[in-house]
Amino acid sequence: MQETRIAVLGCGGRMGRRLLAVTLQSDGCRLVGGSVRSESPLLGQDLGRLAGHGDIGVESSANTREVLADCEVAIDFTTPEATAQHAAMAAETGTALVVGTTGMTDDDLAALQQAAERIPVVYGRNMSLGVNLLALLVEQAARALDASYDIEIVEMHHRHKVDAPSGTALLLGEAAAAGRSVALAEVERQGRSGITGSRPAGEIGFASLRGGDVPGDHSVILAGDGERIELGHRASNRDVFALGAVKAARWVKGRPAGLYGMLDVLGLGAAQQA
Amino acid sequence: MQETRIAVLGCGGRMGRRLLAVTLQSDGCRLVGGSVRSESPLLGQDLGRLAGHGDIGVESSANTREVLADCEVAIDFTTPEATAQHAAMAAETGTALVVGTTGMTDDDLAALQQAAERIPVVYGRNMSLGVNLLALLVEQAARALDASYDIEIVEMHHRHKVDAPSGTALLLGEAAAAGRSVALAEVERQGRSGITGSRPAGEIGFASLRGGDVPGDHSVILAGDGERIELGHRASNRDVFALGAVKAARWVKGRPAGLYGMLDVLGLGAAQQA
Amino acid sequence: MQETRIAVLGCGGRMGRRLLAVTLQSDGCRLVGGSVRSESPLLGQDLGRLAGHGDIGVESSANTREVLADCEVAIDFTTPEATAQHAAMAAETGTALVVGTTGMTDDDLAALQQAAERIPVVYGRNMSLGVNLLALLVEQAARALDASYDIEIVEMHHRHKVDAPSGTALLLGEAAAAGRSVALAEVERQGRSGITGSRPAGEIGFASLRGGDVPGDHSVILAGDGERIELGHRASNRDVFALGAVKAARWVKGRPAGLYGMLDVLGLGAAQQA
Amino acid sequence: MQETRIAVLGCGGRMGRRLLAVTLQSDGCRLVGGSVRSESPLLGQDLGRLAGHGDIGVESSANTREVLADCEVAIDFTTPEATAQHAAMAAETGTALVVGTTGMTDDDLAALQQAAERIPVVYGRNMSLGVNLLALLVEQAARALDASYDIEIVEMHHRHKVDAPSGTALLLGEAAAAGRSVALAEVERQGRSGITGSRPAGEIGFASLRGGDVPGDHSVILAGDGERIELGHRASNRDVFALGAVKAARWVKGRPAGLYGMLDVLGLGAAQQA
Repeated sequence: MQETRIAVLGCGGRMGRRLLAVTLQSDGCRLVGGSVRSESPLLGQDLGRLAGHGDIGVESSANTREVLADCEVAIDFTTPEATAQHAAMAAETGTALVVGTTGMTDDDLAALQQAAERIPVVYGRNMSLGVNLLALLVEQAARALDASYDIEIVEMHHRHKVDAPSGTALLLGEAAAAGRSVALAEVERQGRSGITGSRPAGEIGFASLRGGDVPGDHSVILAGDGERIELGHRASNRDVFALGAVKAARWVKGRPAGLYGMLDVLGLGAAQQA
Repeated sequence: MQETRIAVLGCGGRMGRRLLAVTLQSDGCRLVGGSVRSESPLLGQDLGRLAGHGDIGVESSANTREVLADCEVAIDFTTPEATAQHAAMAAETGTALVVGTTGMTDDDLAALQQAAERIPVVYGRNMSLGVNLLALLVEQAARALDASYDIEIVEMHHRHKVDAPSGTALLLGEAAAAGRSVALAEVERQGRSGITGSRPAGEIGFASLRGGDVPGDHSVILAGDGERIELGHRASNRDVFALGAVKAARWVKGRPAGLYGMLDVLGLGAAQQA
Repeated sequence: MQETRIAVLGCGGRMGRRLLAVTLQSDGCRLVGGSVRSESPLLGQDLGRLAGHGDIGVESSANTREVLADCEVAIDFTTPEATAQHAAMAAETGTALVVGTTGMTDDDLAALQQAAERIPVVYGRNMSLGVNLLALLVEQAARALDASYDIEIVEMHHRHKVDAPSGTALLLGEAAAAGRSVALAEVERQGRSGITGSRPAGEIGFASLRGGDVPGDHSVILAGDGERIELGHRASNRDVFALGAVKAARWVKGRPAGLYGMLDVLGLGAAQQA
Repeated sequence: MQETRIAVLGCGGRMGRRLLAVTLQSDGCRLVGGSVRSESPLLGQDLGRLAGHGDIGVESSANTREVLADCEVAIDFTTPEATAQHAAMAAETGTALVVGTTGMTDDDLAALQQAAERIPVVYGRNMSLGVNLLALLVEQAARALDASYDIEIVEMHHRHKVDAPSGTALLLGEAAAAGRSVALAEVERQGRSGITGSRPAGEIGFASLRGGDVPGDHSVILAGDGERIELGHRASNRDVFALGAVKAARWVKGRPAGLYGMLDVLGLGAAQQA
């Protein structure tokens, strides 16, 4: 199979460097470019060295348009504003895009949608294959089992995380709520403490543990009379997001224009194609 | 909603009594009969008392045909031979059947199939809703993730269990193998011990724990680079099979003739209808 | 070994009946009496039948003093007021006592202490051997590891439980705090939700899940850099408290007067003897 | 507090570099030296760069004796033969030693023992604080609970591991056996598969899972009637061994001569002092 020519936009930061490293180590991929901001001290550095490997003879560039033009697929885990600009540029250069940027608003998504009329774009709130698959399984389980099964979601993250529950826990809660055809906001219950009374039927509970350097554990429990189903995901390091992005990059090459999700990459989705 | 009139065939044994008790306690069900063998010391006893509850004014009978004729759905967790006879009788009386008998051979299943031309029959190797749902999710996960995700199945049962792995673990392994379009026999690996060498890609591993009075825990792990998905089931007592059977009984009432599985009861299957 | 002659005080209620049943089924024990209130409809019933077994030829009695005089060890899971009266009576009849009554105040405990000057008394806030052992292990682990290990306690109970965290979770939290020589009240954190900020060092966190018919799961996590220790307990049914009580009854027979805890029964405690 | 001056012997390999990195990042430590073999291409390289950080102005040296003489504590995760030589040298230079070398035979240990007559030496089969603590807790739990509690040990490691069960699982099994005053070899059971019959009382079972890139999970289950105790350890990466070694280095500085274990570092052991 022909290699997929991949570039990483915003390749100087922590996540960008991991994207470089994972691309370098993945079969079927060739790392052909990386962009940094023009004022970055890392401008002109060898991408292999940025990735913590030996030199590969390709340097980081501040000319994003050129980087886009030189690759088949660009991976972007930057900021919502930067991503919107990159999407417009990629639409012009005809480059496929994989977007793992977090914090995207509806406006930012509109920019992706617009670019997706001309190029294929993969976007996910969480780029891990496992989490996306898990969300799909949770939705099915919640649909199949009636409300006599109580749904609880528990997650654990490292001690530096500042919010609870995690965004991924909420994503899983939304999947469970969708399976039951209710809005999560109407049934969610966070932070049980004190005299809570009996658990209302239909509630979706969240509990958050914090400690150590745990990259992220999630478990969705459906507890009925006499049995429990537990659907869980454990990230062993943050490369899982980079691995998902690179898998998406290989998948998206040569697809028709359209906005795809990680479930499409997994072969489980229904794409909104142009 | 109108109540479902349920009888329990073979109601004097341990499982039969639990079926009586769960039927008595379930909304939308009325316990209207129970059969025992003609030589049973429990013949003529009140079914409520057999269930460990107060009297209900219905006694156990040795006339199975009459018991079948008097109910809408009969639940049968007996022996393969008895079940084959009951199926033929139920086809004559026009009574729906829920079968949780274990150890059914292909011949025994043929008897069910024949009866299913005239009556609706629900049959499952494991009557728990949760296990059947789990198997479906495992199949999907195995299909969505490639062989870079290693599949391992671990189960724990009480100290009296004499075989390993459990039948349910094998059922889950078959689901995983089906998701990958391979035969379990070609990829299964039981009882790792000693110098095993590296794990071959595509293998499906089984590990069995025994101890205490654990009714049955199962977990299917899909372990990739940087992440693990864990899909598990925990039975908290053996009533889970009775609960699944009663749910099936309520579901099957009024269905067309045909052989159904527990996935049909969950709304997830494709029935083989007559 | 000679059998221990055991009576159950307050044997008509749900817990009392389980105490009868477990005593009947335990090796080395003989069930010789059971008390009920004089107005109880269960007065004069056979204790075997109350336990859900066949008759044993011993009936429930309203004469508690006589029940105490006729046994070697009495087990009491009643109310604080009743337990205080039973303790005074047992001190007179010279009968050893095992107390699993919950909700005991300091005044109630003073009554036990007073009786313990003349008879051996075993008392525990939680009568399960496993939970008591776990608390001891948690205390040791918290003492051995410094505050760079974050301590989190997560529990799951059935949907009918009205408070959070569970009393047993708090007991485990107290053990962890004792291991660190701090007061739990100063470091505990319940019900994380929203923008919490980074986790303060030294905090002991609690999270509570509710659902299904889970009898009680507890897990204490000590999460450091690069590793986690998880110390957990899973009750598979409520008999675990009765089993602990019967084990305590066999252990306490023939001991010197004094107030003992479940750790003494486990061979791990330092008794406060008279 | 004064800093501990630490050197890493054999600092060019994968584990050696992690020891450099963890020493650099640990409070209270100063990295003052590192040795490599005289033919190593890494000879003369800056230790900070070897650790994946910026330069620190200290280069790797092939003169092990000088490296030992220049530090207070040397950390050694090399080979049994090299470690025996290092121990003899350290005894001469009066340098404290922390040894995490695996595969040490009784002869190799004799060399450590001899050096320990003149210098303090910390040695452990597994340098993780958590695993050593866990083994101690397992021993206590096995001692406190009688043989009606069945002991099972389950571990999961990455797909490249070639033996089963893991050395750490066996270490935990030995701890459990010691708690019961039996030899592990007489009670261990590996690789259950097929018709096993009921579980013999007293057996200690092992089960091994393999998959993904799991650094190492271990769980010891004590399963009784109505309850299970689960004592587990999860390594999130291999730095856990380096972290334990650096903690040991800080602890051993200034101790009297003697051979210590990781339990001594945890404040839980009884040292064999000279």
